[in-house]
Amino acid sequence: MNERQRARRPGGRSARVGAEVHQAVTDLISERGYGNFTVGEVAARAGVADSSIYRRWGSLETLLTDVALTRLNAQSPMPDTGSLAGDLRTYAAQVAREITGPDGLAVVRLAVALSSNGQQGLQAGADLRAERTRQLQSMLDRARDRGEHAPDAFDVLDHILAPMYIRVLFGMVPLTPDYIDGLVDRML
Amino acid sequence: MNERQRARRPGGRSARVGAEVHQAVTDLISERGYGNFTVGEVAARAGVADSSIYRRWGSLETLLTDVALTRLNAQSPMPDTGSLAGDLRTYAAQVAREITGPDGLAVVRLAVALSSNGQQGLQAGADLRAERTRQLQSMLDRARDRGEHAPDAFDVLDHILAPMYIRVLFGMVPLTPDYIDGLVDRML
Repeated sequence: MNERQRARRPGGRSARVGAEVHQAVTDLISERGYGNFTVGEVAARAGVADSSIYRRWGSLETLLTDVALTRLNAQSPMPDTGSLAGDLRTYAAQVAREITGPDGLAVVRLAVALSSNGQQGLQAGADLRAERTRQLQSMLDRARDRGEHAPDAFDVLDHILAPMYIRVLFGMVPLTPDYIDGLVDRML
Repeated sequence: MNERQRARRPGGRSARVGAEVHQAVTDLISERGYGNFTVGEVAARAGVADSSIYRRWGSLETLLTDVALTRLNAQSPMPDTGSLAGDLRTYAAQVAREITGPDGLAVVRLAVALSSNGQQGLQAGADLRAERTRQLQSMLDRARDRGEHAPDAFDVLDHILAPMYIRVLFGMVPLTPDYIDGLVDRML
């Protein structure tokens, strides 16, 4: 195993540092809001050197994008239940669980803030949505392949994700199972 | 005319100061984001004394709430076109125009940020929504009085306002007339 492989071994030091830095960012967003902390403060919170962060991520903006992408993507693999209604209900419930969880508001605010932060942020936000849309699209394509009538990925954004995001952003929680299933049933 | 009446005369000094302070807040939110400026900076931008702001609004939080309420409420009186479809299409187009206008993103971010800012912010956000919901409800009640089948005010939030807010927050603009009418038609 060479140096590079060791550094990237899952569960190794690199993964640990990554997780600690990500958690520090999420905590700082929760406590202070987006844009109110520096790379130095993230480093101090995570117990690493500033230079480690700059070496790995290059800038605070890139780090924030990485956190948003990781949190919004990795935590919810797309469901494959055999029916579109089942997939969408499971997916909507996963998203609801994420965005109402302890770091949920921070992650939604981060996703929103990215797009409001100049050209680099707009690009980061677009990349984040492109990845989610790709995953969502394969779920909808599977339904179409089974002969089901599937909506557009934008319909899912407008009528399932947007209402949940806005209710979390406005503090109108919890999102009950009845409410979430209602959004899906209404869209279908 | 006594001193009090003079101070409140529309177009008088008080109204001018109010408008300048509101514009200063909107500009600072656009430039720096919510939470990244002080009462002193608002005062300097508006060309008034800090003490004038504290005397009139008491705190930065109250001032921000006042700006959000004024911008989101006063600028769009509820339409009364004689049909629910006409009212909702006009209303949705008004909201779209506001939130995609020069200060639109700042106002949406302010409405969102209010609710993420502790108990006082949650209350301010709830007050803001209560006022909008009351106006919306009278529009829906008029439709019901005419014998039309009207949705719930929360349906309007979830399926007309939330998609537009999220698209503005994500930088997915413009909101075309076809898109806006489509949201209304789909909901009805």
